[in-house]
Amino acid sequence: MDRAHNFFAGPATLPVEVIEKSKEAAYNFNGMGMSIMEMSHRGKEFDTVIKEAQADCLKIMGLDDEYAVLFLGGGASTQFLTIPTNFLKTKAEYVVTGAWAKKALKEAEWSAKHANLQANAIASSADANFNFIPKDWKASDDADYLHLTSNNTIYGTELKETPDVKCPLVCDMSSNMFSRPYDFSKYSLIYAGAQKNIGPSGVTIVIIKKSWLEEKGNPDAPTMLNYNTHVSKDSLFNTPPTFPIYVVGQTFKWILEKGGLEAIKEMNDKKAKLLYGAIDGSNGYYKGSVANVEDRSSMNVTFNLPNADLEAKFVKEAAALKMYGLKGHRSVGGARASIYNACPYESVEALVKFMEEFAKNNK
Amino acid sequence: MDRAHNFFAGPATLPVEVIEKSKEAAYNFNGMGMSIMEMSHRGKEFDTVIKEAQADCLKIMGLDDEYAVLFLGGGASTQFLTIPTNFLKTKAEYVVTGAWAKKALKEAEWSAKHANLQANAIASSADANFNFIPKDWKASDDADYLHLTSNNTIYGTELKETPDVKCPLVCDMSSNMFSRPYDFSKYSLIYAGAQKNIGPSGVTIVIIKKSWLEEKGNPDAPTMLNYNTHVSKDSLFNTPPTFPIYVVGQTFKWILEKGGLEAIKEMNDKKAKLLYGAIDGSNGYYKGSVANVEDRSSMNVTFNLPNADLEAKFVKEAAALKMYGLKGHRSVGGARASIYNACPYESVEALVKFMEEFAKNNK
Repeated sequence: MDRAHNFFAGPATLPVEVIEKSKEAAYNFNGMGMSIMEMSHRGKEFDTVIKEAQADCLKIMGLDDEYAVLFLGGGASTQFLTIPTNFLKTKAEYVVTGAWAKKALKEAEWSAKHANLQANAIASSADANFNFIPKDWKASDDADYLHLTSNNTIYGTELKETPDVKCPLVCDMSSNMFSRPYDFSKYSLIYAGAQKNIGPSGVTIVIIKKSWLEEKGNPDAPTMLNYNTHVSKDSLFNTPPTFPIYVVGQTFKWILEKGGLEAIKEMNDKKAKLLYGAIDGSNGYYKGSVANVEDRSSMNVTFNLPNADLEAKFVKEAAALKMYGLKGHRSVGGARASIYNACPYESVEALVKFMEEFAKNNK
Repeated sequence: MDRAHNFFAGPATLPVEVIEKSKEAAYNFNGMGMSIMEMSHRGKEFDTVIKEAQADCLKIMGLDDEYAVLFLGGGASTQFLTIPTNFLKTKAEYVVTGAWAKKALKEAEWSAKHANLQANAIASSADANFNFIPKDWKASDDADYLHLTSNNTIYGTELKETPDVKCPLVCDMSSNMFSRPYDFSKYSLIYAGAQKNIGPSGVTIVIIKKSWLEEKGNPDAPTMLNYNTHVSKDSLFNTPPTFPIYVVGQTFKWILEKGGLEAIKEMNDKKAKLLYGAIDGSNGYYKGSVANVEDRSSMNVTFNLPNADLEAKFVKEAAALKMYGLKGHRSVGGARASIYNACPYESVEALVKFMEEFAKNNK
């Protein structure tokens, strides 16, 4: 197959090795005469798939079975509600770094309003259209949890270090999950929609510290919003999204084969350096949209051209060269190249070459 | 591919034509050089996929755009909570015909308890281990809604006619969706996990009467549990399970190509007649587990052998002949053959032949 250059923000490019395995599994899994989509989620074949994915996930993160790994439906958006439903007892705190952080806070506010509790934004870059990561804040030691968003797909910003806090730390890692190492053991709960770095859409991964759930979880949460339901049944309370889980599992194996998160980060840094270099070296033709260089995301590279007409032309001409997904998010405009784990260095090279030619031809 | 005989209860067999198309789409969609799993859910390619699936769904049902078609994550189990969250204002009524109906009622009871409302079972066959469909009941005219479960996968019972009621009708059709015609226009809300007759696991289809939502929906429901969120954004509020939706869309096309629900029902009736005939003609060697013949499901055929040892032997010997999924649900034991839409007549013939030989060899 002549692969396109895929810069979609998500669902996004997957490793070609994973796509090849998925194609075969979708048709005839392990030579059984049926697709993996046609098998019981309680059969031994799928049991192996999900167990391996859970074990590989913990291995990548350097965690042990102090944490549970869940594969859930409903997207990270459902977790926005599930988290306060389980853990908001007095007050929760949120650092609002983008549109998705705002949505997470909104569900906590809904939960707080209905039970006379508090869900507070302790920092926000909303006034600057989220073009930086607020760092000047302090979480309350006695907060039920502090909620962070590690990467902001729309605005191209990324939180690169785990802040030191005394309260439990919860993080939406949807758009940079497994793109770099973090000290995951500092977190009580991490969640991520799979459709950026770790698989197709349709499954959300949740890594939760079991002791936190046991001590602080709300036993009266409704069934599907209750983490106990899913931890106690090992993600098989109801039928999970089996095919997406298979693809995620294969992606985990690919990450391990590449050498784990240190090696993945090195690949990603190399791509980001090339692309930001092209922006910064364009004599102002391309302008990065993030205020502080240290906040620049190595996943979503957002930039502007001299005007909106040129931006539209840029996106259109790129697509004609099979470079897809370069249009900025509808809420901010501009251009955006998402260069997730599986985006090959060659795709970024091709993009940079095109950017140089486009700038020359469209002064 | 040498196809297995697939009798899994779900995820379950899919039409081989759908599997073939899915294999290609998982690898190189429309020759674009990328998998459908790697594309934006907001791009024009996926827009065509979801729009066609929605239109085909209404076409199959004989409905028009008075109804909205949603593709959601989280399973039918999440709908158990979403329905009362949106529509329980005074009292809701449930007919409890099996384990899943019980779970649906449980979430309504949770909602009722937290808001001082009523969620009532008006009929139940729990005392008879759900081996029949209660018919001797009357719904309150002023109930917010009456909730039914049209097919009970575990117990092998099926509700074949739509009851006449004055209140809005809500039905979980997960395990016999699109296996037979119903007068769908009598329902205000129908929902179904895809993983039986209409696709792989990971997507739940919801068909909702828009006027009911506008008039009676709870505007204060939290975002992901609010049907307005999904109707107003046409299932694209957040990233939907794109690949499962693609497969569902192809399955809808297959149903239409087969001639729609009348033709599908005829195929299903023929398979069910053959299999129940083999049970009833076995001189009591095989015993159907459903009390009333008219309640027998044409999707899930549940039966017993003379004893549990023979049942285990039966399942094992069948698997050696590539007939998979014949073990009864762990909560009831026995044997079960799920013969959904895509299960070929030839698979049922092969099963019946095996059943005859097994009975002869294991007196």
